[in-house]
Amino acid sequence: MSEEIENIQFELTNELVEQVEHLIEQKDDKELQPLLKEFHYADIAEILDELDLEDAVYVIKLLDSETTSDILMELDEDIREKVLKNLSSKEIAEEIEELDTDDAADIIAELPENRQLEVISQIEDQEHKAEITELLTYDEDTAGGLMAKELVKVYETWTVAGCMRRIRGQAKDVTRVHSIYVVDKQDRLIGRLSLKDLITAKSEQKIAEISNSNVDSVNVHDDAEDVAKVMQKYDLEAIPVVDEDMVLLGRITIDDIVDVIKEEADKDYQMAAGITQDVEADDSIFELTKARLPWLVLGLFGGLGSVFIMKGFENVMETVPSLFFYTPLIAAMAGNVGVQSSAIIVQGIANDNVKGSIVHRLLKEIGLSLINGLALAILVILFGFIIQQEFIESLAISVSMMSVIVVAALVGTFVPIILDKRGIDPAIATGPFITTSNDILGIYLFFVLSGLIIGF
Amino acid sequence: MSEEIENIQFELTNELVEQVEHLIEQKDDKELQPLLKEFHYADIAEILDELDLEDAVYVIKLLDSETTSDILMELDEDIREKVLKNLSSKEIAEEIEELDTDDAADIIAELPENRQLEVISQIEDQEHKAEITELLTYDEDTAGGLMAKELVKVYETWTVAGCMRRIRGQAKDVTRVHSIYVVDKQDRLIGRLSLKDLITAKSEQKIAEISNSNVDSVNVHDDAEDVAKVMQKYDLEAIPVVDEDMVLLGRITIDDIVDVIKEEADKDYQMAAGITQDVEADDSIFELTKARLPWLVLGLFGGLGSVFIMKGFENVMETVPSLFFYTPLIAAMAGNVGVQSSAIIVQGIANDNVKGSIVHRLLKEIGLSLINGLALAILVILFGFIIQQEFIESLAISVSMMSVIVVAALVGTFVPIILDKRGIDPAIATGPFITTSNDILGIYLFFVLSGLIIGF
Repeated sequence: MSEEIENIQFELTNELVEQVEHLIEQKDDKELQPLLKEFHYADIAEILDELDLEDAVYVIKLLDSETTSDILMELDEDIREKVLKNLSSKEIAEEIEELDTDDAADIIAELPENRQLEVISQIEDQEHKAEITELLTYDEDTAGGLMAKELVKVYETWTVAGCMRRIRGQAKDVTRVHSIYVVDKQDRLIGRLSLKDLITAKSEQKIAEISNSNVDSVNVHDDAEDVAKVMQKYDLEAIPVVDEDMVLLGRITIDDIVDVIKEEADKDYQMAAGITQDVEADDSIFELTKARLPWLVLGLFGGLGSVFIMKGFENVMETVPSLFFYTPLIAAMAGNVGVQSSAIIVQGIANDNVKGSIVHRLLKEIGLSLINGLALAILVILFGFIIQQEFIESLAISVSMMSVIVVAALVGTFVPIILDKRGIDPAIATGPFITTSNDILGIYLFFVLSGLIIGF
Repeated sequence: MSEEIENIQFELTNELVEQVEHLIEQKDDKELQPLLKEFHYADIAEILDELDLEDAVYVIKLLDSETTSDILMELDEDIREKVLKNLSSKEIAEEIEELDTDDAADIIAELPENRQLEVISQIEDQEHKAEITELLTYDEDTAGGLMAKELVKVYETWTVAGCMRRIRGQAKDVTRVHSIYVVDKQDRLIGRLSLKDLITAKSEQKIAEISNSNVDSVNVHDDAEDVAKVMQKYDLEAIPVVDEDMVLLGRITIDDIVDVIKEEADKDYQMAAGITQDVEADDSIFELTKARLPWLVLGLFGGLGSVFIMKGFENVMETVPSLFFYTPLIAAMAGNVGVQSSAIIVQGIANDNVKGSIVHRLLKEIGLSLINGLALAILVILFGFIIQQEFIESLAISVSMMSVIVVAALVGTFVPIILDKRGIDPAIATGPFITTSNDILGIYLFFVLSGLIIGF
């Protein structure tokens, strides 16, 4: 055994990319192949993400499909789509043969519909083909859409020795064996055991004697996010997927769940920042505009709404002009408080820890915003002293600001709760949506309350 | 084997909590113990999170430490802290004995310093004690702070048969065997093999023949976030941790990484929403105020800054009063655009996909914001027609708004990049920070540019 230990710190350098580009230009496969062989497939994918499409396709066609199938899975989605366009159905089918069923189904699902059937028909391994076709029937946001068909399954009546023999066969197709699932004659899940249990058992023991009947499972139609929550909560690394009759259909592994968690978090974050769809910094200007403009237009309408409101108070300009100087401040406070409240609630809903009665939450939010509002109001009054503003004006501004903060906090808290109760993703209530409505509401309240205090 | 299959959908009901409370009040241990035994420890933790402290401590003292140690790990951090305060050092040490070294070290690290030594001294298993003490020396945000000492280790000179024998011993202490690590005589990591490899090998083969020298590892001082990225990128379920001499020190499993990813995502989200520390909807008003008020004060200062700026343009109020009606709109646009830009960059930096030259990014951001700005400017001009505003005013407002949008986008893009280059977490640049500075800058620019166009 050689003692080389892979250093995990792969650094994608311009030199490396240029070297690869140069070798491709020269069509120097003899140099290129061993160079790329040195890298992990995830690293090669990073290199390909940087190449021109033509060069990327060149590399994919050069390397063997065992490596390129893994590379394909790691590529940026946009780039993968383009690469696949440049491969024949036969070539895609060859890649598919090398992939686990879950990845294979994901790749096929990304193809245009007319190509899907073409590619499937070219898959030679009939069992693989049937399994992939089955997986394609499930919604991608369900347990069925996440699961793979590869798993190790034994019957309760087998002996440990017989089991070991058969497992040697099954395990070849399964990259990582987390658990061995025990089924009855109708293929219904009735238990599990670990390889460790198997190794430490005596060879003549029956599987039924050593298996653990306490096995968690999810239904094939369960929501992917719920599966993620269950696996996180119970610290599971794999979970079997069953149908209504408990028949074992597949298994989901934690690495797929990591992706679900990451995507979910990214989506919520983007929603809070006012970005409507999944975009990356390196997407095209067109894609980015499509993701950003809608929220900005919403914000613009909100702003135009406040123009209207302020026009309505135009006559106050002569008597108390300073009120108009404070409108951006009021809008900012209403917006910030609203975003804070909604973010805490949205996260609480996502993590299932928003409990207790509505009245309690209402009182708490009012108390909290009164404390914050009071602290900020004192600062505004101090500021008024410094710029020698009329005291009654400072008082009017700070009192109405406090009220605006309370209202904004309540809107920020209860809009997500109401949306969630109606089955709408509460994350939509964070960011521009809450900011905009709080801006308008805040400015209106501000003028009305200031008017009551100052008397106009 | 019984055929009961655990249904994974545990639902925490008020009835259940009340039933448990009632049994505790009655001190009816005979009923309580079997009732709780039915549940997974993660579910019992959820029940305890709902109980009074006294009742929670009662349950912890009632159940055996094998179960309660796992429950402790799943409790809300605040509640765990309180429960531990109510246990003696001896009792905590008993819980610690049952935990894996990584969890044990985490629990001890949460204790006040004077209790830490007391608890450690009460641990009876000397090896466990030494391992925990070692783990406590590492920074919690490094690989050392995440790793556990439990792993299965074999020497390259052993045979498969000898290896199987010894593994049966070692594996008892290791909850999940992901990989078996192969070391040389100096305990340096030189390879790995899976249980599957071992099962499928012939018993007389040498470990060196069947092991895989291609083993990823991380250094004990590597940053936890970097470890998370590596494990995600290479789809690893466990990774060995080594020191500078490649001596094997421990291993990190994917479930700990899931927690790192989740925490990181939550932190970024809260930062974007203007919340300075990790709080939950159910924290106390005091905690929540501490997390929210600082950002609000920052926002207030920003708002007061724009009061100053607008006061400087007070004389314009008589000639072009409508400009003042548009200030909340300008501030909102500057804020929204800034948050969008910064969110995309912060996410890009976190996922390592912000590449290419600064000049290219500059041009792209200007192009993008010009497109968005133009679309919004047209809407503002249309609105001007509708409310019969002077065309020159509408023109001044829309042109200066466009400029504000471009500047806000540039600030939102480059502040995170600069922070990141200086080693500061770029996520701090999202949310109120960018909103506030863009508000002030935007309003100033708006008046100056409108002045140039209208001529005041």
